[in-house]
Amino acid sequence: MIPSKGYAAQTPETNLAPWNFERRDVGPQDVQIEILYCGVCHSDLHQIKNDWFPGIFPMVPGHEIVGRISKTGTAVKKFTAGNLAGVGCLVDSCRTCNNCKEGLEQYCLTHSVPTYNGKGKDGQPTYGGYSNNIVVHEDFVLHISEKLSLPAVAPLLCAGITTYSPLRYWKVGKGHKLAVLGLGGLGHMAVKFGVAFGAEVTVLSTSPSKEEAAKNLGAHNFVVTTDPAQLKAKRSSFDFILDTVSAKHEMAPYLSLLKTNGIHICVGAPPEPYQISAFALMMGRKSVAASNIGGLPETQEMLDFCAANNIVSEIEIINIKDIHTAYDRMVKGDVRYRFVIDMATL
Amino acid sequence: MIPSKGYAAQTPETNLAPWNFERRDVGPQDVQIEILYCGVCHSDLHQIKNDWFPGIFPMVPGHEIVGRISKTGTAVKKFTAGNLAGVGCLVDSCRTCNNCKEGLEQYCLTHSVPTYNGKGKDGQPTYGGYSNNIVVHEDFVLHISEKLSLPAVAPLLCAGITTYSPLRYWKVGKGHKLAVLGLGGLGHMAVKFGVAFGAEVTVLSTSPSKEEAAKNLGAHNFVVTTDPAQLKAKRSSFDFILDTVSAKHEMAPYLSLLKTNGIHICVGAPPEPYQISAFALMMGRKSVAASNIGGLPETQEMLDFCAANNIVSEIEIINIKDIHTAYDRMVKGDVRYRFVIDMATL
Repeated sequence: MIPSKGYAAQTPETNLAPWNFERRDVGPQDVQIEILYCGVCHSDLHQIKNDWFPGIFPMVPGHEIVGRISKTGTAVKKFTAGNLAGVGCLVDSCRTCNNCKEGLEQYCLTHSVPTYNGKGKDGQPTYGGYSNNIVVHEDFVLHISEKLSLPAVAPLLCAGITTYSPLRYWKVGKGHKLAVLGLGGLGHMAVKFGVAFGAEVTVLSTSPSKEEAAKNLGAHNFVVTTDPAQLKAKRSSFDFILDTVSAKHEMAPYLSLLKTNGIHICVGAPPEPYQISAFALMMGRKSVAASNIGGLPETQEMLDFCAANNIVSEIEIINIKDIHTAYDRMVKGDVRYRFVIDMATL
Repeated sequence: MIPSKGYAAQTPETNLAPWNFERRDVGPQDVQIEILYCGVCHSDLHQIKNDWFPGIFPMVPGHEIVGRISKTGTAVKKFTAGNLAGVGCLVDSCRTCNNCKEGLEQYCLTHSVPTYNGKGKDGQPTYGGYSNNIVVHEDFVLHISEKLSLPAVAPLLCAGITTYSPLRYWKVGKGHKLAVLGLGGLGHMAVKFGVAFGAEVTVLSTSPSKEEAAKNLGAHNFVVTTDPAQLKAKRSSFDFILDTVSAKHEMAPYLSLLKTNGIHICVGAPPEPYQISAFALMMGRKSVAASNIGGLPETQEMLDFCAANNIVSEIEIINIKDIHTAYDRMVKGDVRYRFVIDMATL
């Protein structure tokens, strides 16, 4: 077994604190990564607090992992020691269902294994990236370009792919009007990708103060959603809304902004169900859809696209000791736009 | 003005009863139709009872109208006296918005005029098909084939197009597994169209007693939705669900039956909002959509398709005096599958 150290929550009631644990030995198809940076996702907080479902404790969060490979198994083909590498939200899946065979491991029909707060095929709990190392099967490890700022790449592994994947699936691009609801970790990546794909991008936000920042990210327009006049002016005007809000929110005001045949795509995950009027959809053949991260091939495609187009996340690097201060600021929306832990501070 | 007689509700509290009223004179582009049959739609009852919104009274319901043209305006080009003709849910629209220009009058962005319980561009209330005649602009009148049983064509004007249009829009056909939820006026037409388009059709119903009828309509499979074992066996198996239920219902059990990327299409309109969990959509990139009747060009296409493929509604012909008995039976689901009023009984 490999000795590891990280930050763990021992129970949903306790703060994260240093914890020593063990990783499995490097198997024939595994790689060992020395973690350099790990992004801080809102879902880390949801999971250590049991907001969604009862978690597995002790819990080491973190699924936006970048680092350098220190060891490769005897049968590993894609990586060698010294390579940069990334790990996102998944570290395994059944690999045999139709979705896995098509590279849609995020929709595995039987058993996908989350990077933390899950159990591997060996029945052992998985521990995430708030730690100094990780051992992962090479099929679930991504190549990372040396060209980009490494800490700013980390959030691409979750916030990036979560917004890239639906924009690609629904072929959002030139000639489309895309609204991005919420300008946080996911929202700011949605703006960057929407602009890169050629769409006309509008940020919908409750905070007038975010307009300048939205424009700096490349957004073409900005709508303050608490202003009825601004909302009314945008009725029936968007082909797509990418909804990144993970807190409870009304859907009706946004559905009215969609054109006929428009699609409202949810990538946030409020614990409460959405309330959706049949009439709001029917009077324009509208849809509400949702999308979950991305599969391994598409995540690699996204990382390659980012390297080719010089796209990274906007980040603030933190010391792991300050993780709870970062959570508090994240909940208040006081981060532009993603915290990333410098694992040298561990 | 043209003297007309029909059945009207004087208030939401009173039953339909005979009523004499006037229609506008036949304008240059109008046709006058002597109504022979009118289908009975669940929305007729919703509207005379103000279930959806405050209605315009007296109200003459009916938007599944077939009859023979008795008079044409001087500029009418598409029809001559003696032609069979049909009128559906709309008798006018703005004709200038982008949707109207594309033949999507059902999604008119400014002012579509319903066949009854609405106001025309002249500000006058519209009165529907529970009457002996109607005057309509020729652009909103459909050609009806002499080949088909005329009373059985009437329900195509609402129940038919409401199911035909979404199946065409989402290109449902060969290689697709289509589930039809609810086997009433809309559901039985969805089965017929789904089968005609080449899909494998499964009826989802709470009533085991409907299995034989579903198979007689051409359905390939039948699932009793109150049986957990049958539901479980169909998890992740449908490309599309066409949901024809207009009473309040849970969505979660049906969303679990969709394949990855599956679409749940609503054509019923429960007054209460649907409760939809983000996770139920997210764990399979699923969508919930809704569709409203069809535009004029597509309604004509549907009628022509029905004539070419010998498709009509299954009906029970009634005397207009029995309309409230018919409503009572309709609410209980005791009709296979649509009541049609023989207007000779007026």
